[in-house]
Amino acid sequence: MPSPTATNPARPRVVVIGCGFGGLEATKALCNAPVDITLVDRTNHHLFQPLLYQVATAGLAAPAIAAPVRHLFRKQPNVTTLLGEANRIDAAARIVHLTDGTALPYDHLIVAAGATHSYFGRDEWARFAPGLKTLDDAFEIRRKVLLAFETAEKELDPARRAGWMNFVVIGGGPTGVEMAGTMAEIARQTLPGEFRRIDPASAKVLLVEGSPRVLQAMPEDLSRRATEQLLKLGVEVRTASRVTAIDARGLEVRPAEGEPYRIESRCIIWAAGVAASPLGREIAAATGATLDRAGRVVVEPDLSLPGHPEISVVGDLAAAMSHLAGHEPRPVPGVSPAAKQMGRTAAGNLLARLEGRPTKPFRYRDYGSLATIGRNAGVVDLTTPFGRVKFSGYPAWLFWLFAHVYFLIGFRNRMVVLFDWASAYWSRQRYARVVTDIEPAPVDG
Amino acid sequence: MPSPTATNPARPRVVVIGCGFGGLEATKALCNAPVDITLVDRTNHHLFQPLLYQVATAGLAAPAIAAPVRHLFRKQPNVTTLLGEANRIDAAARIVHLTDGTALPYDHLIVAAGATHSYFGRDEWARFAPGLKTLDDAFEIRRKVLLAFETAEKELDPARRAGWMNFVVIGGGPTGVEMAGTMAEIARQTLPGEFRRIDPASAKVLLVEGSPRVLQAMPEDLSRRATEQLLKLGVEVRTASRVTAIDARGLEVRPAEGEPYRIESRCIIWAAGVAASPLGREIAAATGATLDRAGRVVVEPDLSLPGHPEISVVGDLAAAMSHLAGHEPRPVPGVSPAAKQMGRTAAGNLLARLEGRPTKPFRYRDYGSLATIGRNAGVVDLTTPFGRVKFSGYPAWLFWLFAHVYFLIGFRNRMVVLFDWASAYWSRQRYARVVTDIEPAPVDG
Repeated sequence: MPSPTATNPARPRVVVIGCGFGGLEATKALCNAPVDITLVDRTNHHLFQPLLYQVATAGLAAPAIAAPVRHLFRKQPNVTTLLGEANRIDAAARIVHLTDGTALPYDHLIVAAGATHSYFGRDEWARFAPGLKTLDDAFEIRRKVLLAFETAEKELDPARRAGWMNFVVIGGGPTGVEMAGTMAEIARQTLPGEFRRIDPASAKVLLVEGSPRVLQAMPEDLSRRATEQLLKLGVEVRTASRVTAIDARGLEVRPAEGEPYRIESRCIIWAAGVAASPLGREIAAATGATLDRAGRVVVEPDLSLPGHPEISVVGDLAAAMSHLAGHEPRPVPGVSPAAKQMGRTAAGNLLARLEGRPTKPFRYRDYGSLATIGRNAGVVDLTTPFGRVKFSGYPAWLFWLFAHVYFLIGFRNRMVVLFDWASAYWSRQRYARVVTDIEPAPVDG
Repeated sequence: MPSPTATNPARPRVVVIGCGFGGLEATKALCNAPVDITLVDRTNHHLFQPLLYQVATAGLAAPAIAAPVRHLFRKQPNVTTLLGEANRIDAAARIVHLTDGTALPYDHLIVAAGATHSYFGRDEWARFAPGLKTLDDAFEIRRKVLLAFETAEKELDPARRAGWMNFVVIGGGPTGVEMAGTMAEIARQTLPGEFRRIDPASAKVLLVEGSPRVLQAMPEDLSRRATEQLLKLGVEVRTASRVTAIDARGLEVRPAEGEPYRIESRCIIWAAGVAASPLGREIAAATGATLDRAGRVVVEPDLSLPGHPEISVVGDLAAAMSHLAGHEPRPVPGVSPAAKQMGRTAAGNLLARLEGRPTKPFRYRDYGSLATIGRNAGVVDLTTPFGRVKFSGYPAWLFWLFAHVYFLIGFRNRMVVLFDWASAYWSRQRYARVVTDIEPAPVDG
């Protein structure tokens, strides 16, 4: 089948797989170059993942953080957007095959297929503890959280009711901290007064983390601050605690010290593990590239594949090193600024190859990291030209807010998010408390 | 099992089934009375159905037209909100049973369970031509419309592509007219420039109506205006045309004059028939009430059931008559103002019974009707104290807009909808173009 893209035979064909941060940046960096780009994604939108937890916790509607990709590139006639899922790469013939039978020939390929949840080999946990990567995940978590309170209101048996009033977040990274903080806010500030038989403020929110502290990627004092702020919101923080089992009614926890114990909970959220997209295995099979333990594709310093300079891998799917002059190469973390920078580097190197210039090694510029912990609290750790700047509490929350709104795609979405947040801030209400797929859990289930 | 509602034994227990317009108004009218109310609904939100087509056509996000019921009654301690589906009524014991096993004893019952789609006995059509009653319906239609364009962009065979570019709305009532007008706008104004192989503006939008004119409930000159405005937007209007078959690839139409013919279409939307909630049959079985041909429960002039003054039925589930003094009783139409008025009357009659006063017959006050036909066009037919006022075009559209925003529940939602519309109006863009459940139709499917 011929390729369904409008190509100019004189121009190199670039296929980009994935429109997350990496694929989007690569496409943006290439769209004024003399190439024909086909951008393929399984969804029709670029998702602003740092705010996905807000959709999961009913603070934002989905369209506020999802920009239709096709619309973003409407003024770039050399960019063709296709909805589809790449599942096979023929590296010899240089063709990407989509599941629907579409074949996309390429001269250059940039793979930015991202990551998915990892349950560390315990995939059966996914049923009981959904993770948060896509909008559908966010809807599922929103549904679970809101239906737990609804079911508790109908449950007359105190022991069973307790299970519906215990909320557990597994994983103390930024997403876990943000989810736990927001869920505590929902219980303590949004819902009180709306129920007649339960007191939502009596709900327990637990954050379980295997390592000794939350926000491990941050300096220790900021971890401590984050923990203090979580405790203040009413989150029970259980660090150095491994999850050993999860079922429909709760989970088992083994602390580093003391006896293992069980927590009854009907609403468990997984924020613990990330695995590379399964497309990594396909790339390895097609090109002979190696995968690291997390399933990520090991790339050359310039982000291309060994023996396949025409293929680059960027973002969470790449096991890349940062090559700063005068430093040892260091692994690149799986964060959105790194994905964006990789997308730009891969695009730049692609153009360099077209023009016969040498490619450049990838250099990750770390601007620091930040996390929010519910209303008015957060931690910020910035790397600036003047050195490191750390702060927490209200200023960190404000900084987080404006940083996220600034990086949102599209002026309209920024206005919507600011408006939603302002109104949520003053009213303490959460706007998007919509559950459509109501299958109320059986009271005796 | 005891009732999971906080009841005061001295106060009459009122159960309200359904929180659409009828149930919501009844509850509002009762919530300052000395009664304990339990409001049961299958969803957690009151849906502002007149704007549902905007969610289906990606103009609004779902939370903008869905207000969490629990939140609406948070300040009314005598109102308990329960999420659940009533499926059995024991009229002798005065108990409503929910599917999850919850039993709700009542002294008074108001049933406002609404309506669903009717395919006139051809339920197999539902798969191919979804209707528009719930948020899930709206998501399904949004997905179908947006994926049709996405699939057309990938389809290389012109004949097959045509099927993806033909959009058919069946039913020329207000919903059908609004859907067809908006879909024409999407094709002609929102999407052009975003595709590389197809021209969205060349999409066909057809409105098929069995009767000789659209908006049959309106005066004939307004029907004509509506048709003119639809044609101007590029909608093909086929009145006096019955649908005789629907399948995955199109439909068959039999015009009143001329030969039957087939339309190839991969995106067919059903806006033709409405049937009462299946709970009507349960009520008939439990109380001996009769159902009309549409499955609606025939009620007494005061909206109660014959022999069961403690049960009232309101809204789309009721086959009610309007009893205006000095006029013959007239059937009440299935529109939201009628549902609201019935809810208030049933609540007033319930209080009258409690106080030993006589009940009042229901009187439907008809303020007129209105419909919008895409951007800047609409028709309005008002009944005012000074007589009938009819207008169309831009003023009608403005009137429609403000009337709808005015009746939206909650100040916040009003602001959101106004903001979304203003931004859509100036940009001609549609904000909520999010498809999450992407199962791209196979190109050769």
